[in-house]
Amino acid sequence: MKSLGQQIVVDYHKCNPEILNDVAAVKRAMREAALKAGATIVTEAFHLFNPYGVSGAIIIAESHLAIHTWPEFGYAAVDLFTCGDEVDPAVAFEHLKQALEAEEFTAMEMKRGIMNSHGLRFDSHKPAPALAAAVA
Amino acid sequence: MKSLGQQIVVDYHKCNPEILNDVAAVKRAMREAALKAGATIVTEAFHLFNPYGVSGAIIIAESHLAIHTWPEFGYAAVDLFTCGDEVDPAVAFEHLKQALEAEEFTAMEMKRGIMNSHGLRFDSHKPAPALAAAVA
Repeated sequence: MKSLGQQIVVDYHKCNPEILNDVAAVKRAMREAALKAGATIVTEAFHLFNPYGVSGAIIIAESHLAIHTWPEFGYAAVDLFTCGDEVDPAVAFEHLKQALEAEEFTAMEMKRGIMNSHGLRFDSHKPAPALAAAVA
Repeated sequence: MKSLGQQIVVDYHKCNPEILNDVAAVKRAMREAALKAGATIVTEAFHLFNPYGVSGAIIIAESHLAIHTWPEFGYAAVDLFTCGDEVDPAVAFEHLKQALEAEEFTAMEMKRGIMNSHGLRFDSHKPAPALAAAVA
């Protein structure tokens, strides 16, 4: 089925806990994952928690990559959401697997915004004059 | 099953396209959703695309909320990822449904980082001396 976006939801296990607790290393791994996948980085937000754990998201022109780490469990929850055919989230997945030194993972692939032949599943019936004017 | 986090994956349809293309309105709706759900906002990143569409993520102390909008389809893809028992992502879901004026939606609820009685599904076998020292 065609869709606007695709999303890989990954749980990385048995990661290197020191990497998971290093906000600079996590940010670098996420940025590299985005670029290797062919994405264009737009903006980002990362945070190191007290006593430990990193959360962050990178907004890419083609959607986003997000990560949350639990160093005490060697665990990281990652979402790789992309749209278009030019970015391959599987490349980002592989890069992060190596960068976090994950020995195990579980992953799920989802399509977001499923399209039918007329457009989306639900056709909007609301007028959008301002938007139409802005686009015209 | 117990888990470290929970995630609601929502596709909002038949939204108000003008709201979906207003980065200030989308950011406000996301911030309100986070606060109403009981979350603590840590940092955020939002972007308005040319010709239209908004992407953004809010890092909360309890994980993240992310959104991507396609005003031309009246569609928004939202992820509400929280951890702990004190934040209710369902409250964020309801708030965004109203704020985006979504008439239809599809949603899925997932658990992230499933715990068994010993901890996570995979016990880390890697030593973490630096982490242990930092925590001590």
